[in-house]
Amino acid sequence: MKIRFEPFEVEIDVEPGTSVLEASLNAGVHINASCGGSGVCGKCRVKVLSGQFTGGESEKISAEDAAQGYRLACTTIPTSDLVVEAPVHAARDTAALTALAAGTAQTAKLIGAEELKAAGRFDPALAKVPVTVDPPSATDNISDVGRLLRGLRKLGESHFAFRFEAIRDLPDAWRQGNWTVTASIMRAATRTGKNQVIHVDAGDASQRNIAAAIDLGTTTVWAQFIDLASGEILGAEGDFNAQIGYGEDVITRIMYARKDGGLRRLQEAAANSINEVLRKLARKTGVDLAEVNLATIAGNTTMTQLFLGVNPQYIRLDPYVPAAAYYPPVPAHQFGLAFNDHVPLLIFPAVASYVGGDVVAGVMGSGMHVDERLTLFIDLGTNGEVVVGNKDWMVCAAASAGPAFEGGGIKFGMRAAKGAIENFSVDPFTGEPSIVTVGRGRARGICGSGLIATVASMLMTGIIDERGKFNVDHPSDRLRVGEDGPEYVLVWQQDGALDRDITLTEPDMDNLIRAKGAMYAAYITLLDSVGLTVHDLDRVILAGGFGQSINIERAQIIGLLPELPPEKFIFVGNGSLLGARLVCMSNRLREEVTEIVEKMTNFELSVAPKYMDHYMAAQFLPHTEANVLFPGVHAQIATVRDMLRQA
Amino acid sequence: MKIRFEPFEVEIDVEPGTSVLEASLNAGVHINASCGGSGVCGKCRVKVLSGQFTGGESEKISAEDAAQGYRLACTTIPTSDLVVEAPVHAARDTAALTALAAGTAQTAKLIGAEELKAAGRFDPALAKVPVTVDPPSATDNISDVGRLLRGLRKLGESHFAFRFEAIRDLPDAWRQGNWTVTASIMRAATRTGKNQVIHVDAGDASQRNIAAAIDLGTTTVWAQFIDLASGEILGAEGDFNAQIGYGEDVITRIMYARKDGGLRRLQEAAANSINEVLRKLARKTGVDLAEVNLATIAGNTTMTQLFLGVNPQYIRLDPYVPAAAYYPPVPAHQFGLAFNDHVPLLIFPAVASYVGGDVVAGVMGSGMHVDERLTLFIDLGTNGEVVVGNKDWMVCAAASAGPAFEGGGIKFGMRAAKGAIENFSVDPFTGEPSIVTVGRGRARGICGSGLIATVASMLMTGIIDERGKFNVDHPSDRLRVGEDGPEYVLVWQQDGALDRDITLTEPDMDNLIRAKGAMYAAYITLLDSVGLTVHDLDRVILAGGFGQSINIERAQIIGLLPELPPEKFIFVGNGSLLGARLVCMSNRLREEVTEIVEKMTNFELSVAPKYMDHYMAAQFLPHTEANVLFPGVHAQIATVRDMLRQA
Repeated sequence: MKIRFEPFEVEIDVEPGTSVLEASLNAGVHINASCGGSGVCGKCRVKVLSGQFTGGESEKISAEDAAQGYRLACTTIPTSDLVVEAPVHAARDTAALTALAAGTAQTAKLIGAEELKAAGRFDPALAKVPVTVDPPSATDNISDVGRLLRGLRKLGESHFAFRFEAIRDLPDAWRQGNWTVTASIMRAATRTGKNQVIHVDAGDASQRNIAAAIDLGTTTVWAQFIDLASGEILGAEGDFNAQIGYGEDVITRIMYARKDGGLRRLQEAAANSINEVLRKLARKTGVDLAEVNLATIAGNTTMTQLFLGVNPQYIRLDPYVPAAAYYPPVPAHQFGLAFNDHVPLLIFPAVASYVGGDVVAGVMGSGMHVDERLTLFIDLGTNGEVVVGNKDWMVCAAASAGPAFEGGGIKFGMRAAKGAIENFSVDPFTGEPSIVTVGRGRARGICGSGLIATVASMLMTGIIDERGKFNVDHPSDRLRVGEDGPEYVLVWQQDGALDRDITLTEPDMDNLIRAKGAMYAAYITLLDSVGLTVHDLDRVILAGGFGQSINIERAQIIGLLPELPPEKFIFVGNGSLLGARLVCMSNRLREEVTEIVEKMTNFELSVAPKYMDHYMAAQFLPHTEANVLFPGVHAQIATVRDMLRQA
Repeated sequence: MKIRFEPFEVEIDVEPGTSVLEASLNAGVHINASCGGSGVCGKCRVKVLSGQFTGGESEKISAEDAAQGYRLACTTIPTSDLVVEAPVHAARDTAALTALAAGTAQTAKLIGAEELKAAGRFDPALAKVPVTVDPPSATDNISDVGRLLRGLRKLGESHFAFRFEAIRDLPDAWRQGNWTVTASIMRAATRTGKNQVIHVDAGDASQRNIAAAIDLGTTTVWAQFIDLASGEILGAEGDFNAQIGYGEDVITRIMYARKDGGLRRLQEAAANSINEVLRKLARKTGVDLAEVNLATIAGNTTMTQLFLGVNPQYIRLDPYVPAAAYYPPVPAHQFGLAFNDHVPLLIFPAVASYVGGDVVAGVMGSGMHVDERLTLFIDLGTNGEVVVGNKDWMVCAAASAGPAFEGGGIKFGMRAAKGAIENFSVDPFTGEPSIVTVGRGRARGICGSGLIATVASMLMTGIIDERGKFNVDHPSDRLRVGEDGPEYVLVWQQDGALDRDITLTEPDMDNLIRAKGAMYAAYITLLDSVGLTVHDLDRVILAGGFGQSINIERAQIIGLLPELPPEKFIFVGNGSLLGARLVCMSNRLREEVTEIVEKMTNFELSVAPKYMDHYMAAQFLPHTEANVLFPGVHAQIATVRDMLRQA
């Protein structure tokens, strides 16, 4: 569906369910809005000129106005193409701002079962193979295992080892199944390795073969069920990682793990969180957890070690040594996961203490390790990771961005939960904001993507300068001096959900600038280290839960993402979960995981001489050398500022 | 030491501690003795002519007689060479009987650590390798596992996998050991397989590397500790298998396993018995069970499945199918053994339901699978097994001999425990016996070796005929008719430990004849099946606890063993324990175990048409065709009978 904003002649495609206010923010049409989209403040009045829609009515709009087509933009949801007249005060900055918001990054065409099948690579790591044999006789009384191996050989299957319990269960399974059993076969991890029969069911039980892919994040846990028989994704569920109760970030948790019983409690918290998500997912998909035959897990190095109960202290201490790159498959139930005893858990390997299995999974999931194109992979987050390379080589580095992208270290910062400001624009003349919150409720704070949008909009409109300092001469009464110095009132107390005003301070902006500078310096240093620049890149892949709601242009304005055409950017969303899923579906990909780790050279930024130079140079919006490195943004800012001066 | 018996000019070598009575039985000099060697009956008077000795005095010998040198043979233990005058009544049968008892089977030169070292095959299946590395630094912060692998590579060690728990323990072990750890490495089972690091200790802990070899027999459990660093056997201990409480033989136990909880109780009984033996052994050797790093177990197919908790019912039911030939290494503690969690248990593979891991271990221990000589391997027992072949090929078969060899199915039969008649001869004229019991106490019954000695002596002296029937015309009052027909009183009530006479009946002899016939028919059929006869054999290897106390000549007289020169016979005693020990010391031998199983073709006697013919023909002492198949025994019997007729 399209929404056309008059009189500015700006048109934008919107997804179903998008409000007119959200559409205006993405289209660069500023409409004042204070209450986050909850329909309370009544400021976002627009006039619908044509088209079908739902909602938009309010006690703030008189019956007479309503009859003329006036509605609140924040609660008006189009059900057909709409033409909307925006308030005229918005006109003054539309022209320039529209240009900035035109492109939105494309969603990656992710690799899935269909692509794997087409490429002949749909070869689940765990196969269920029904085998029927002749019953034994006096002249043919080889062992039950020997009979199964003979049956498998007739099906072209060879090179087997057995899990003990599969042997134990086989004699009764043969007889109960009237000489048909279904062997659950864990494929060899290498070409010279052995396939392992890990379980047997009596009769033909090959119709269902469920795998669970798990992303164990520092903040959230996600899981998906995949039917390995068809490749179908049966569903996904997520929830918070209960380890949060022991610390928001990995360092705090590592410290907690030093306490008596601390590591065990963190291990159990992770396992319980995963089980909660699995149970929700089971209810949603109608899968019985006893049907699950295989599980994979990807997480950063700390999350992995905490989940496995491996002492994480040396991750935290210089020189930051992880316990292991690779772990063998382990019995999932041994770590408290609510699966049957035989279910193996495949653990994504890590490259380094701060380049973990989540990044390896993301790289694999994005396919950059089999692609000729030179790719920059960015996993945004408190512990950010960057990878540069292609199918022939890869270098990677961890960038300690700090928690600003996840709302940490920001006065009113919060995770992207209900009430978090996630989108923003500002009227350059009045300083009045347009605010949209997660869940469209009254604002409770601001999350990472909201912070980027806010800072980008304020920079473009001159409310802040390139150092992230407020223009104290601006006439808006939202600009004031608080206890932390100059600040901007994002939400007045009466419009928000808190018992005080929600503000943005200069220290908040310092934190964001440090975070974006750290990420920028990381990938620039990494590119530098291999003699490349951003202009050599064919693609930029963005991963992370955060990466899904980021707007490329705004991230470019603040100097977080390199100034490349938007079509070069690809979102893969939760790369960790993507990789965890793919590895279930394709044993060849499982082998490639090892190749990825072997291929990835870790680059320790803390000892790279140029890193600090790049970091310091990036402590500016968008950059100290914006005219060279961000010429487009530089020119846009100049254009908009000129417009404002002339107005 | 030698004992010379006058006036018969018979001399015999004896082991220290052997009584004059035992020596006389082995030398073929009959001395009446009723009380089993306990010094009670006073019948075994001899006169010591020269030499040093202890014991022999008795209230049954007057001071005057004692002064002349009279002693009881049963309690006289030589401490130097002795010359003894035996009672003259013994003269009449000496000449012929002496010829029969001249040779005693040699003890095999068993393969041990020294031989393995000399052959470059001392390569323990589990190695403890100390590794020292440089500490990590900012420019060298690979994972702890990566650092261990690098250290191992410098020592020429490669191709590793890790047990998860070894990874878990490694970070702290590195730091506690100041960058020295000792890796316990389970060697790959095949050339293409991976070595597995199963455990790490901080610092250098390679001085001690203890393995436990376990023989799980139907009746007894034996264990040895081996220091894998040196190859030294630290000690051995044995005890009864507590499963006996649930049934004497495997079939009864398999039946018991069908009951609710029965299999679990049998499993626990076996584990408890092994633990008891291990604890005794630990006390004896000063080894801490926590020092044990590797365990191996060999047992017949039923014992193996019962110990592992694998349903054994199909072993018992036609067509007698075992669960598996091979089992993977399993965690010993998972089956209740009192070792540390990381200790792997290697399980000897089985060829068939009735050719189990004990036989495979015995074959390996005897080295017949690497020897060019054509060998017949016989494991005597209720469930007897026979193997024919050499390094190029092997056929094997199970012979259900029945329990007679272990004292079962015999009216006064018993295991070779204290009070069991284990050696015997009879005076052909008076019918008076010479009896030695296990532990030299009053007789409580008769065990397998005693039964063979008794029947052989009675046959030779014509007290029984070739069908195992008593010569009812014999004047001895020990021959009488009891409730089971004609019988012979082995021990009068007043001389024994029971409240009644201990007798040998014709049904007892029928049982022995069936047992020996079954074993004989088994190896003859097996040889037949490959176009050979006993005369093609270079060696006969006898295994089994029973095999250690059997006298070759007497076993030939009854037609159990083939009539070959005594030097062709080799005792390996407990072959199962021997194999279990060797496999710890040599990973190459561990690989060979698989080769043995693959090489051994099981021959199912129950469906071999000729087996029943051979069996029926062997229901005679020594055989219906004794003149052809046992010509020596045949001639000796004829000679002795002639002598007796002429006397």
